[in-house]
Amino acid sequence: MEIVEKAKLAKEAIRTWQRVKSSLRNKVLEEMALILINNKDEILSANRIDLQNAQDKGISGALLDRLALTDDRIMDMAQGMREVASMPDPLGEVLHGMVRPNGLQINKVRVPLGVIGIIYEARPNVTADATGLCLKAGNAVILRGGSEAVRSNQRIVALLRQALVNVELSPEIVQIVEDTDRAQVQQMMKLNQYIDVIIPRGGAGLIQAVINHSTVPVIETGVGNCHIFVDESANLADACAITINAKTQRPAVCNAAETLLVHSDVADEFLPQVYEALKAKGVLVRGCTQVKQILPDVELASESDWETEYLDLTLAVRVIKTFDDGLDHIARYGTRHSEAIVTESYTHAQRFLAEVDAAAVYVNASTRFTDGSQFGMGAEIGISTQKLHARGPMGLNELTTTKYIVYGKGTTRA
Amino acid sequence: MEIVEKAKLAKEAIRTWQRVKSSLRNKVLEEMALILINNKDEILSANRIDLQNAQDKGISGALLDRLALTDDRIMDMAQGMREVASMPDPLGEVLHGMVRPNGLQINKVRVPLGVIGIIYEARPNVTADATGLCLKAGNAVILRGGSEAVRSNQRIVALLRQALVNVELSPEIVQIVEDTDRAQVQQMMKLNQYIDVIIPRGGAGLIQAVINHSTVPVIETGVGNCHIFVDESANLADACAITINAKTQRPAVCNAAETLLVHSDVADEFLPQVYEALKAKGVLVRGCTQVKQILPDVELASESDWETEYLDLTLAVRVIKTFDDGLDHIARYGTRHSEAIVTESYTHAQRFLAEVDAAAVYVNASTRFTDGSQFGMGAEIGISTQKLHARGPMGLNELTTTKYIVYGKGTTRA
Repeated sequence: MEIVEKAKLAKEAIRTWQRVKSSLRNKVLEEMALILINNKDEILSANRIDLQNAQDKGISGALLDRLALTDDRIMDMAQGMREVASMPDPLGEVLHGMVRPNGLQINKVRVPLGVIGIIYEARPNVTADATGLCLKAGNAVILRGGSEAVRSNQRIVALLRQALVNVELSPEIVQIVEDTDRAQVQQMMKLNQYIDVIIPRGGAGLIQAVINHSTVPVIETGVGNCHIFVDESANLADACAITINAKTQRPAVCNAAETLLVHSDVADEFLPQVYEALKAKGVLVRGCTQVKQILPDVELASESDWETEYLDLTLAVRVIKTFDDGLDHIARYGTRHSEAIVTESYTHAQRFLAEVDAAAVYVNASTRFTDGSQFGMGAEIGISTQKLHARGPMGLNELTTTKYIVYGKGTTRA
Repeated sequence: MEIVEKAKLAKEAIRTWQRVKSSLRNKVLEEMALILINNKDEILSANRIDLQNAQDKGISGALLDRLALTDDRIMDMAQGMREVASMPDPLGEVLHGMVRPNGLQINKVRVPLGVIGIIYEARPNVTADATGLCLKAGNAVILRGGSEAVRSNQRIVALLRQALVNVELSPEIVQIVEDTDRAQVQQMMKLNQYIDVIIPRGGAGLIQAVINHSTVPVIETGVGNCHIFVDESANLADACAITINAKTQRPAVCNAAETLLVHSDVADEFLPQVYEALKAKGVLVRGCTQVKQILPDVELASESDWETEYLDLTLAVRVIKTFDDGLDHIARYGTRHSEAIVTESYTHAQRFLAEVDAAAVYVNASTRFTDGSQFGMGAEIGISTQKLHARGPMGLNELTTTKYIVYGKGTTRA
């Protein structure tokens, strides 16, 4: 079926779906969890074909690892569904209500976004995770995963749709773009009539392609060139612990630190100690010329290092002359994701928090906390690095919009 | 100067501007009001050249009227600035705050969006109005008005920038695209690095062009194909008053009604009385075949009438068989702006409010209330008909984003 037909079906189905009570929406997610567990073997055998095809194409390493499903990963997908089911319902909340002087009663109420398109890479677990979050918030979902995962995704979506049928609801609120060529996804990004928002999940290339081609509104997620700025007044033990945590606790994610900025007044004392700790964790350091004077055996950084989201155990390190130079560096190279300062200066802490333009700004804490569960919102669909609609971790509330509900008594405008 | 240079200047200037206290931001707007009044004659003479050029190009009627400035209109612009200055500061509000189990203190705080691009038609008053709202909310603004108003806009912007200089602030937070060809505005819509959001203000063609070409996130405003649905249980006197108000109180605006839907059970009684009232107001009616049976002298509507935003004294009228048919018509032809039902049925009122997908849904009230001032938010920058970020009238809050401010104590993630 053509993507336009699927999108139309999703748009139509949402008129019924949005009337479904939260208890039944939760039941759908429970049913989805169950059906995934009960049909594990079927999913795994579809996944084995995907894996074989990927290996035949020469895909290996991290990409292959993300594509691979196991018993445990399927259990995690089911567990994720159950956790989302147990979260509070975001819908119906009255965000603001008033009676106007003319008696008009106006309530601003949280409602579903509508039809959400998710464009992602070859990670079949996203298929279930994204569906759970979108459906819980009353939305329909159109999934377009990476072509390497096509059979796994087809299988998972067939099961999720069956779960809807099992509870006597229309399966059309979950749609998958099965075509692996680019024509359908290109078309999908222009379906403003049927799709309310597209959320790309994946690397910088994928996100940029969606931004460039979509006329449907996009929520930009992901790229994090995050900094740790060690100020002259920093507690150096804290600075060391925070640097190690932000760089090494999970280097492949967007909230990991990529550049360490060190004030020149503490560089002589701090750099040798943090370098020891980094080396012990297997981190490769690429430093500016001043760093190299203090740590002669590090590699020399080039301009491109300040711009790079390594997503692995590499850290760019730069000595900074003044606090303002530090802010300038972050303004120039940061991607407005998560930025941290380590300082004991009240004034510098306040200025950093106010002046650094990012989704999350930290004093004396690791950038690794920018995450839905760490921020207390449960599962997340991604981390927004744009300023419209949602900024930072996006949970269920960020998958909703609002509507003004107005009660009159034959009220007309004077 | 090239647009990319201007956008860069705006982006840089915002780092200082966002530190400016609200009392000084208000003083800037007061200064702007004053400078507009004191230099009225200068603005009027620039406007006279624009008007002459427009007339030479054969422009007339409503377009010419919108382009024309008068003493009163300039006073209104100044008065608008003063009103925005007197509104509460949207910035700094803590929307949500918590302490996490690990001691991390997280506040979600309202901050400026950043650099806002406004693309609009030949209405020089928008130049001042949009600047006032954007600046009050801590943003920089890049203005691109219709080419017919270029001299008026240049003069107004020069004065607004002078006002900033007068209070010893950088004028670079107000930029104007002076070039009247399309090259610069095309470039502007791709400057994701420097521009945070673009808001188009104008007709459907302008808005669609911006959606199609912009990679910068867009807030879609405007088009309103709004319906009044007269249910079988309606109080017909209310229905008549609401129809007349929604159609005729100000027909050229987006929240005016364009189609009247009448339940077949009340068509015989209601249509003659509403038609009399509409005729008395000079409204031309285009009706479906059933309407024509009751009102033989109306014009016959075609399919395109259900899709048309007339923006003048024309009304499409259709007889509807069931309540659900009414919802279907609105789902198919509505533009998700403002929709109203007139009914005494509790169940139909509740279903209409829940199931109609629009920025504002009304029971027993005119669609004309969808407006910033009517909703108690003061001046507005436009009415969003998209679901991301802002929906319905956009006031100062809608010109902001949020930022997570996180206080740790050497806190790292386990």
